[in-house]
Parts: sequence; C-alpha cells; structure tokens
Amino acid sequence: MRLAIDCLMPETLSFADNVLTLIDQTKLPSDLVMLECRTVETTFAAIQRLSVRGAPAIGIAAAYGVCLARDTDGARDTDGARDTDGNRDTDGNRDVRARSAYGAAIDRLAESRPTAVNLFWALDRMRTVLESTSDDNLLHDRLVSEAKAIHEEDRQMCQAIGRHGAKQLHSCKNVLTHCNAGGLATSMWGTALAPIYELHQSGHAIHVFADETRPLLQGARLTAWELSQAGVPVTVLTDSMSGSLLRSGRVDAVIVGTDRIAANGDIANKIGTYPLAVLARYHNVPFYVAGPSSTFDTKLKSGDLIPIEQRHRDEVARPYGIQLVPDAADVMNPAFDVTPAELVTAIITERGIVEKPNAEKLAEHFGVLER
Amino acid sequence: MRLAIDCLMPETLSFADNVLTLIDQTKLPSDLVMLECRTVETTFAAIQRLSVRGAPAIGIAAAYGVCLARDTDGARDTDGARDTDGNRDTDGNRDVRARSAYGAAIDRLAESRPTAVNLFWALDRMRTVLESTSDDNLLHDRLVSEAKAIHEEDRQMCQAIGRHGAKQLHSCKNVLTHCNAGGLATSMWGTALAPIYELHQSGHAIHVFADETRPLLQGARLTAWELSQAGVPVTVLTDSMSGSLLRSGRVDAVIVGTDRIAANGDIANKIGTYPLAVLARYHNVPFYVAGPSSTFDTKLKSGDLIPIEQRHRDEVARPYGIQLVPDAADVMNPAFDVTPAELVTAIITERGIVEKPNAEKLAEHFGVLER
Repeated sequence: MRLAIDCLMPETLSFADNVLTLIDQTKLPSDLVMLECRTVETTFAAIQRLSVRGAPAIGIAAAYGVCLARDTDGARDTDGARDTDGNRDTDGNRDVRARSAYGAAIDRLAESRPTAVNLFWALDRMRTVLESTSDDNLLHDRLVSEAKAIHEEDRQMCQAIGRHGAKQLHSCKNVLTHCNAGGLATSMWGTALAPIYELHQSGHAIHVFADETRPLLQGARLTAWELSQAGVPVTVLTDSMSGSLLRSGRVDAVIVGTDRIAANGDIANKIGTYPLAVLARYHNVPFYVAGPSSTFDTKLKSGDLIPIEQRHRDEVARPYGIQLVPDAADVMNPAFDVTPAELVTAIITERGIVEKPNAEKLAEHFGVLER
Repeated sequence: MRLAIDCLMPETLSFADNVLTLIDQTKLPSDLVMLECRTVETTFAAIQRLSVRGAPAIGIAAAYGVCLARDTDGARDTDGARDTDGNRDTDGNRDVRARSAYGAAIDRLAESRPTAVNLFWALDRMRTVLESTSDDNLLHDRLVSEAKAIHEEDRQMCQAIGRHGAKQLHSCKNVLTHCNAGGLATSMWGTALAPIYELHQSGHAIHVFADETRPLLQGARLTAWELSQAGVPVTVLTDSMSGSLLRSGRVDAVIVGTDRIAANGDIANKIGTYPLAVLARYHNVPFYVAGPSSTFDTKLKSGDLIPIEQRHRDEVARPYGIQLVPDAADVMNPAFDVTPAELVTAIITERGIVEKPNAEKLAEHFGVLER
C-alpha cells in the first residue's frame, strides 16, 4: 500500500485491478478501515454518506467510479442491482452496453453531492473521453487513464499549493482551520493543510488549532487524526471556541479549503467557514482559502448562486444514534455556507496567490479563456 | 408537583421535607428524571456535573444545599461520608456541630463552579443569616427561610425580566439564543427566554432559533425541550450555522443569559456567546443580555478579570463515550467566554433596561451603594 504522508497514513484513495480502495472516513479516528468499491453504486454510496469527502477527493473517486461501470449493466447498476446471472454477454453487445453504462455512471455519480464543483469538473472530463473515443475496445483503458491523470494532477496540485501557501504562512506559528481540507480530502497533502505539511517537513515549528466542525466533526475526527499521524501538533476546539481564541491573539492566520469558488471570488465551504471569516476580519487575522483550479466555477457570477446541500436532520439531532434534540423541535442542516470575497485575504491555488480576490483578478489567474 | 410553565414541565428545583428535588438536566431531552438531594455532597455533585445549571438555578440549589447540612456531620459530610452510626448526638452537641456543618457546607458548595457569581451571592446571603442568628434552635428554619426567599425572588425576577424584555422584543418574530437561559436555568421562566414566554403567552407569534451549544448541548437538549413543552416553535442549529443564518436576514434579535456582569458591562456567558455578539454586530442585529441583579459583580472592573472555568477534555473529545478526537491531539474546553460591553445592545434585568451598558449606567441601574 502506498503511503501518502510521512509513511504513517495509507493513501486516501487508490485504484488497481478495477477496484477503488478508500479510507472509510466515517470510521475515523477510532478505526482505520479500508473500503473497496467494485461498482458505480458502492462508489455513489461512499460519496453520499461521506466515506470519501473533500472536494478534490470526491472528484477523483467519481472519476474512478465511472471506470467501475465496465463489467456491469449500467442501467441496472445505477439501481444497485447486478446482472442476475453474473455472466458476460457476447463481446459486441457488451461493448455497446459498456458505453451506455459509462454514460449512465457519469449521470448517476453527478447526483451524489450538489455543492463541490470538482465532482462535475471530473465527470465532465470523463464524459469528454467517453464521447471522443470511438473505438469501444479502447474505451475502458482511456477512461482509467483519464481518472489516473486527474488523480496525478491532484497530487501535483497539493504540492504546488503547499509551496505557494508556505510562503504566505512562513511567519505563522499558530494556524486555525475548519473542517478537513487535508490529505483525507484530496489525494495527498490536501489544500488548506498542504502549506502546514510543507512548513512542518522543512522544520518550521507550526501548531494547528482545528475546529471540531459540527455536525459531522471532520475537524475533530479527520484533521486532528491526519495531523497527529504526521507529527504536527494539533489542538481541537468546538466551533464555538474559535471566537474567544481569535480574541486572545493566539492565532496568526486562518486557512480553510473550498468546495466552489464563484467568478467574483465568493467561496462555498463547510458550514461554519463564514462566521470564521467574519471573526478573522474583526480581529485583523488573515483569512486564507486554498483550492485547486478545478474548484473555480466561472459559470456562477457570485456565491449567492451556489447551490447549498441540505442534509438530514439526524446528523444534528441524533449523531451516533444519541438523541440530542427533542422530536418536537425543528432542525436545520445546511452542509455549506458562502463567504463573500471581501472577507478573503487571499486565495491560494496550484498556480499561485490571488490577494484580495475579485472577478478580474481570478479570470486572469485561472486563464478563463483556456477553459 | 408544582408545574412551572404551561403545566407541562415540573419545577426545575423544589425543596420540601429537607429534600432538594431537581430535574436531572443531564438526562434531557430523552428522559425526564427527578433527582433527590438529601446531603450537601449530593448537591455539590449535582451542580458540578451540571444536573442543575444556569447561574440563577445554581445559586438557589446551593442555598438549599446549605440547609441539607443540618442532620449530618458537616466536616465529614463534605467528604461525602455520613456519621458511622447514623445516630444523633445529644441536642447541645448537635446544635454546635450543625452550626459548623452549615459553615463547612457554604465553603464546600462555593467550590462547585467558579464562573457564575450568583453562586457566591446566594452563599453570602446564607452566611449572613448563619452569622447573624445567635439562637442555634432557630438556625435551620432561618436558613430554609432565606433559601426560600432567594427562590421566590428568582421567580419574581424571571417575571420582571419577561415584562421588560418583551417590550424590547415586541417587534421580533425570530429570535436567536445560545445555551439555555430558560426555565431550566432558573426557578421559572428563565432570563433570556422569559421575554419569549411572556410574548408567547400574550399571543405574539414568536419563533426561536436555538444554537445547539457544544460541548454540552444545552441549546439542543434543554432550550429546545422546554420551548417545545411550552408550545413555542423552535429550530435547532449547530453553533457553526448561526453566521450564515444571521447573514440571511432571518434573525430579528439575539438574546442570551449571563453568568457574570462585570462593573463595566462586559459579560461572561457560555462559550460561543462572544462570536455570536461579533456576528450580530456585523449584521446589525441587536444583541441583548438578560440577567438578574445577582449576576452583577461590582468587584470586577472588567470582563478580562472574570475567572473562566476550564472543563474536562472528554466533554469535547469523548461525549457519550464516543471517541471524536484522537488521543494524540490536544483539546481545549473553556466553559465560558467574555463579551465586551461595546457589543451589547442592552442588558435586561429585573429592574429594567440598560442600553449601551457602561460602568456609570450600571452603577446607577443596580444602585451599587445599596449592595
């Protein structure tokens, strides 16, 4: 098994012999369980229940998920069923059916999560390969190649964000982050945590405050786990504690990931990011957002247009099966919030830094005409 | 059993036949369990583990707790032990020992929680009665009378805060609160929730957004429960959601309780109050603090001097025995934060309203020379 960070942590996701292997992030931090996905439907379910999460990792998992449509009947696989006899059709029929199964897999996987644009970006790349490959015999290999390319680009993206971000954070000793935008959210070092790993590996003493990030506790469970594995000192706090922590002057910078960057620089990220941005501004602490180009969505003029996923009440009201909220009370559970560009000190991407982001600067930075 | 609110909820605490009966708030919302305290030590433990909590309720519970020293050996009772034979001494010895036991009980109960000033205020009143009553035969009755007076004053305080606060909130349809400053935190209607109950009972349509309030979830478990019992519509959100909720314009006012008001108007309240005050200011939403005179601490010049209770790591890292944080990670767990007076729109007390509170206005409002 290939190890991603300091040889202590298995890869967040890997693909070999037509099996997508994932760390089941719902089981952390108490258990490190590897989950094997062999069908589109198990991949869909893994994304939806957050066994794999984080915008870049979702995109990679979905790309590999498309490749898993190969040996199953696409139309039926999307219902979670398999061929009743498990046998293959004749080669000719199989190829035609494989092509439609790949298309159905792309449609299906696009329904797994609504907010992270990387998902649609990765699936668009897979669809382009599907549509541009006329030889059915080459289709599977070409799709796997494209998914592996997305995966490899993500690794390089993490390293580049780490390098650019480390320059921004070089004078910081204590950094506050929210949710998990680390190795578990990507293929390698992550986005928001990449500069932390870069600094740590180069011998810079850096300590991370990690918001626990209710309701699903990605900060407590995942960020604290992966930083500890890598030997980076980390302190977990509830989301309600970051206000007084910032007021105490003990935080040099806030850094978070992002699920979507609108054309004007507004960003969507895990619920609780926006109040952190307001608090950082109020206390004159820089607020950085780290994300790859694939997170940039030129189609959305501003953050108000980003669709916000509403999740099940039980994530708030009944975590781990324990009743925290009486049945008579209503519950709200938006998974993300939107932070307006004016609260963002800089966006860090694999291409470099965009300070005080706005539509013009971002269009230039991302070379919108290339897309 | 006397019912406090709309005949659906038993009293938060009551005292009869030398038994202090409390709702065990650690069991809500799934179970309504009444806890009977017959000794100083069981009262101490109930306060410390938050079976009874909320600044006013702690004060009342501690006052009754002092009375429970009567039939036990104070010195030994404070170790949780009882007389080995359970028999009474001769009357003379018993009275002398009772006097010292009451004193020891006051000292012991003062150690239960460090931040809520009402605790010390109530115990000071009990000590004054103890020291000013020379006739040992009258001691127990006088102490019980004083505790009942504190209790009754608290009921009247709740109603008065309800009246004054309802005038402030009369144009509000949606109010956001944090933690529980309701009937469960006092003897009756609470402080921050008293204006809500007042408005609801007078037919005003009012809806409450309740922060869940990690780590101990008093908002989800207690505020949502008591408002639902009284028929007030309530929506629970995680603490991380109040930022985007405020940004959406759906909140007309924020109202919270307080555990201590410093001389300059800075207030200590449940962790997570301060960021809410910053967010309310940022979105031009009024931020009200409701608390009785007993919460005012003239001895502390500013909020920075308020001692902040640090609680056990497991409340954050291992709630309900479930591991959320890896052992290798540090955890912080301050129970309170301090909100500076300049972020407070008005303080609501049983005496009325102090807008834009400062040292001068508060000294006048509370009539500091009287104290």
